[in-house]
Amino acid sequence: MSRKIIVVGGVAGGATAAARLRRIDETSHIVVFEKGEHISFANCGLPYYIGGSIEDREKLLVQTVEGMSRKFNLDIRNLSEVTAINREEKTVTVKQVATGNEYTESYDQLILSPGARPIVPPIAGLNDSINVFTLRNIPDTDKIKSWVDERSPKKAVIVGGGFIGLEMAENLHERGIDVTVVEMGDQVMQPIDPEMAAIVHQHIQDHGRLILEDGVHAFKEEGRKVVLSSGRELESDITILSIGVRPENELAVNAGLKTGDRGGILVNEYLQTEDEAIYAIGDAIEVRDYIQDTPVMVPLAWPANRQGRIVADTIYGKPTAYNGTLGTSIAKVFDLTVAATGNNEKTLKQLGVNYKAVHVHPGSHAGYYPGASPVSLKMTFDPESGQIFGAQGVGLDGVDKRIDVIATAIKGGLTVFDLPELELAYAPPYSSAKDPVNMLGYVATHVADGDLKIVHFDEIDDIVSQGGFLVDVRDPQEVEMGAIPGAVNIPLDTIRERLDEFPSDQPVYITCQVGLRGYLATRILEQNGIDTINLSGGYKTYACVNH
Amino acid sequence: MSRKIIVVGGVAGGATAAARLRRIDETSHIVVFEKGEHISFANCGLPYYIGGSIEDREKLLVQTVEGMSRKFNLDIRNLSEVTAINREEKTVTVKQVATGNEYTESYDQLILSPGARPIVPPIAGLNDSINVFTLRNIPDTDKIKSWVDERSPKKAVIVGGGFIGLEMAENLHERGIDVTVVEMGDQVMQPIDPEMAAIVHQHIQDHGRLILEDGVHAFKEEGRKVVLSSGRELESDITILSIGVRPENELAVNAGLKTGDRGGILVNEYLQTEDEAIYAIGDAIEVRDYIQDTPVMVPLAWPANRQGRIVADTIYGKPTAYNGTLGTSIAKVFDLTVAATGNNEKTLKQLGVNYKAVHVHPGSHAGYYPGASPVSLKMTFDPESGQIFGAQGVGLDGVDKRIDVIATAIKGGLTVFDLPELELAYAPPYSSAKDPVNMLGYVATHVADGDLKIVHFDEIDDIVSQGGFLVDVRDPQEVEMGAIPGAVNIPLDTIRERLDEFPSDQPVYITCQVGLRGYLATRILEQNGIDTINLSGGYKTYACVNH
Ligand SMILES: Cc1cc2nc3c(=O)[nH]c(=O)nc-3n(C[C@H](O)[C@H](O)[C@H](O)COP(=O)(O)OP(=O)(O)OC[C@H]3O[C@@H](n4cnc5c(N)ncnc54)[C@H](O)[C@@H]3O)c2cc1C
Ligand SMILES: Cc1cc2nc3c(=O)[nH]c(=O)nc-3n(C[C@H](O)[C@H](O)[C@H](O)COP(=O)(O)OP(=O)(O)OC[C@H]3O[C@@H](n4cnc5c(N)ncnc54)[C@H](O)[C@@H]3O)c2cc1C
Ligand SMILES: CC(C)(COP(=O)(O)OP(=O)(O)OC[C@H]1O[C@@H](n2cnc3c(N)ncnc32)[C@H](O)[C@@H]1OP(=O)(O)O)[C@@H](O)C(=O)NCCC(=O)NCCS
Ligand SMILES: CC(C)(COP(=O)(O)OP(=O)(O)OC[C@H]1O[C@@H](n2cnc3c(N)ncnc32)[C@H](O)[C@@H]1OP(=O)(O)O)[C@@H](O)C(=O)NCCC(=O)NCCS
Repeated sequence: MSRKIIVVGGVAGGATAAARLRRIDETSHIVVFEKGEHISFANCGLPYYIGGSIEDREKLLVQTVEGMSRKFNLDIRNLSEVTAINREEKTVTVKQVATGNEYTESYDQLILSPGARPIVPPIAGLNDSINVFTLRNIPDTDKIKSWVDERSPKKAVIVGGGFIGLEMAENLHERGIDVTVVEMGDQVMQPIDPEMAAIVHQHIQDHGRLILEDGVHAFKEEGRKVVLSSGRELESDITILSIGVRPENELAVNAGLKTGDRGGILVNEYLQTEDEAIYAIGDAIEVRDYIQDTPVMVPLAWPANRQGRIVADTIYGKPTAYNGTLGTSIAKVFDLTVAATGNNEKTLKQLGVNYKAVHVHPGSHAGYYPGASPVSLKMTFDPESGQIFGAQGVGLDGVDKRIDVIATAIKGGLTVFDLPELELAYAPPYSSAKDPVNMLGYVATHVADGDLKIVHFDEIDDIVSQGGFLVDVRDPQEVEMGAIPGAVNIPLDTIRERLDEFPSDQPVYITCQVGLRGYLATRILEQNGIDTINLSGGYKTYACVNH
Repeated sequence: MSRKIIVVGGVAGGATAAARLRRIDETSHIVVFEKGEHISFANCGLPYYIGGSIEDREKLLVQTVEGMSRKFNLDIRNLSEVTAINREEKTVTVKQVATGNEYTESYDQLILSPGARPIVPPIAGLNDSINVFTLRNIPDTDKIKSWVDERSPKKAVIVGGGFIGLEMAENLHERGIDVTVVEMGDQVMQPIDPEMAAIVHQHIQDHGRLILEDGVHAFKEEGRKVVLSSGRELESDITILSIGVRPENELAVNAGLKTGDRGGILVNEYLQTEDEAIYAIGDAIEVRDYIQDTPVMVPLAWPANRQGRIVADTIYGKPTAYNGTLGTSIAKVFDLTVAATGNNEKTLKQLGVNYKAVHVHPGSHAGYYPGASPVSLKMTFDPESGQIFGAQGVGLDGVDKRIDVIATAIKGGLTVFDLPELELAYAPPYSSAKDPVNMLGYVATHVADGDLKIVHFDEIDDIVSQGGFLVDVRDPQEVEMGAIPGAVNIPLDTIRERLDEFPSDQPVYITCQVGLRGYLATRILEQNGIDTINLSGGYKTYACVNH
């Protein structure tokens, strides 16, 4: 029983859905409408083509209209914008972009994968600016790249410190351009928490300029001058606006389909809108947070691909639920890797969830093998059940692996108590006999079990200034390199002989470099009747923020 | 209630146990006996110090006797060999290595972590050889390194293709030495299966010589000549014997403690021997295979460290079970990474378990981003329940991550059906929108569901020679580069027009480059009434073995 399925949008979600539809059924008529010229291109590769590390433009075109049509026997129509859905008749109205001609096409099922578009606020002077760009597709890319190739800009302003902004910062820097990133919030990279972002801030400043808590107020001189809310003015030869995306929901809204608070098309767990013939996937929809089951928008490629895959199964009678989005994400920011999965602390605070957070900074691999560097990891969890809420990592190497392991642990329902039991691959070039994820597990277990009390980087200064007793158990040489104001230095190795220097009528706060020696100190002190509280992540986490 | 705990062996398992014992209890008397000079050294780093990538010998000494004694308030006695356990009296006899003097020391609990030692068979001429070495500890390392530094050997023979042998091959090659690896079996690296090892074989041959299915029969001319069982003679300026290890079990055996078939000390899930005051951990014990619950020996650092950690908890009244060993392992072999977790196909065959295996070769990261290379993965699983039995990976990059993810999935009880749902971190430098592990999951799901029938690299030649119809769906240019003898070339894109060329009275075998296009072909053909069977891993897996 042959049927006709229409897909709107021919890139990540749409192309994947179309390919899977055909694999399941050879006989359906599958039409893909794409308003742009290109289908199935590598959105995620665009910044790297501009930066030059991807040299060949062809490589961005994963599939061509011709090739994919043949391979999957699809009716792909590019430069064809779907302008209306006529739900009663089960047809769509299609406008041929080149001619403006319109026609209708009927469907049995309709899949919407129209994606999202860059947010462009009505900033004064924007319309007169000639050097301000957004980046979403191949034409955007071509425009930016020719501007760089032909005008050899010297100074760039990146507005917005999300992953696309920072990838563009890196890639324009690669092209020899002085880059300034302007971010309205107090941190870049929203998926991570401030103290983790602080590591990224330092790193950006090593390669360019970073301005936080300031936004663009106006453009002047055709965009040559960027005026910030603070009054500060920046010169710019090229400006990238990358302050986020909003779902392409007009088609759905005009057809009377519901959208959520942030504009995402609403679907059930089978990705079906309230119209049972219409499904929606990808950046355009609102999804459930995998952990908290709250509504969220996660405009990333894995969800779009996964949703495209399973919506086809559902349509062909094998209903497959989408179980929510963890929001696992990653970006290369110059030499750093920044990655996260699940809920960060900001989110948990906002939701009022009972949680704990721990920090560790183990080596990416065995310290004695060349090239090891710290992997700064933070994990949030439920101290009662041990459920892992999320994790974040920043470092030069090995961050992707640890976040993937934790994302897998979450999907496997493993708790923090299980992480020490993960038997991960160890040889000196790859890890340590206790992997960083094992370490996170050990530390979180202590915290959950109440065997280790911790305090955080943002609490310790207040505690000291209110008379708290803080002991730094590092060696004097380390303390000289920098320490928390007010800390008394009693090196770990001498604690047993100097027990009388610790007060027993008040808690003793402990700090070291990363938290490990501090923990060792708590073990000695607690057994000697002294109440201890360790600084999570040690001086390293503290110093990221307070340098 | 202070007690006295004796630990035999001061390196991976022993040092970890001692450190944790102290963290739990400040008051016990903890004695560590180590017959060698060094405690707590980086066994796993030894080859790299010889090769020169670890330059500083100090880096191998993770803890010194003095430093660790002070830090953990331990009574560490190196150069002290425990020669007997007197179970009745609960004492051990200790011989001071320097003087030969003996004394006894009492214990409340005894922890054995004596490790393993290299197997040295009684080969003719071995005793007269001056250039044959084994590698286990610092003195071994010093000997090998000075031989290399002082004698500038030109030719090396490595006997045994396990991970220590291959690490030594790489490191001696780094020193400019011509290396020949001699392996008695038909493959190197036992944790992986033959077709995966075949990739490693090619790679070794790119850097040196590899002789399989031949063993050392005798040494001649003080070791200058190595005579193989085949009669072949090799010249050698330095020979490393690395054919495996056997547990250091004499102490236990002499004390009447039971050992398993391969000599491993027998313990219960709490790592307790049949004597309730005596625990044993590390390379010296027999463990249970995590998946099959069969007895196995897994002489690796993670198990030793984990067991050292939990045995201390058990001793102090928090009984913590050791839940078996997955055998996750990894090695760098020249530029390749070779890793495995769980059960390989050889093991499953031997045990007579009902299993299926699939192969994929996706890119380490997005193909359009520079530096991507294939990750060859194989996974074994239960086609009924979808339980993951194990996985193996070989490649230049990204192998460790995928094996760690699968090891985590196994511990989380995830099945092959869950792997497509793993939401892993994607940006072009790190992965693809569908990660290689997702791909493994998709393919295995099809096989388990019966949606995809597969045949393997070692079956296809016989099938063709017995009249099987094999179609290669790659493009003609690819076929020219090499193909399976007897295959008919019908490119994927033309199949729909050439359906009449496929027989409908017999199954059609399909091959392509890696299995993906073959799968696409099966989808088209099956829906046209043609029975298809796809070659797992495609020509790539086939060619690894049949090149
Ligand atoms: C520069 C950049 C870098 C990125 N990097 C990453 C990354 O590293 N990792 C990651 O996970 N994600 C990344 N993303 C996000 C990722 O590309 C998206 O999440 C994903 O493409 C979403 O898939 P989709 O199908 O919903 O939308 P898209 O892939 O955007 O496809 C939607 C398509 O629908 C078309 N369309 C819209 N409306 C209509 C209509 N009415 N008629 C016809 N056609 C229509 C659009 O022209 C568009 O081509 C990046 C995105 C960009 C722009
Ligand atoms: C060259 C090399 C490379 C390796 N690489 C890796 C790797 O990359 N990854 C990995 O996972 N594993 C690796 N291993 C294996 C790993 O080192 C071992 O699995 C681990 O050290 C086992 O710990 P253990 O405590 O059981 O034994 P060991 O660490 O060997 O410690 C046992 C100690 O006990 C002492 N001892 C024995 N008998 C007595 C006695 N009667 N009295 C006093 N002392 C005694 C020995 O002298 C020895 O120092 C490697 C091993 C070697 C040799
Ligand atoms: C190119 C594109 C159309 C591919 O879609 P696709 O065909 O679903 O995906 P793949 O080529 O990865 O193939 C996956 C299929 O091959 C199968 N497969 C993969 N490797 C296999 C192997 N070795 N053996 C057998 N089958 C294999 C999988 O099971 C899956 O089939 P299924 O869905 O029927 O189970 C789509 O991903 C796309 O347009 N990508 C570019 C846009 C984009 O994603 N942008 C965002 C990221 S930059
Ligand atoms: C060096 C050695 C003695 C260390 O043993 P250890 O003290 O148990 O291990 P670590 O130094 O990794 O510390 C782990 C402890 O610190 C804690 N910890 C780690 N990071 C922490 C942090 N940031 N904050 C708080 N606690 C932390 C862990 O919870 C764990 O304590 P616990 O066991 O009480 O839960 C031992 O591993 C050894 O001898 N290694 C060399 C030999 C060897 O392993 N060879 C084979 C591989 S080459």
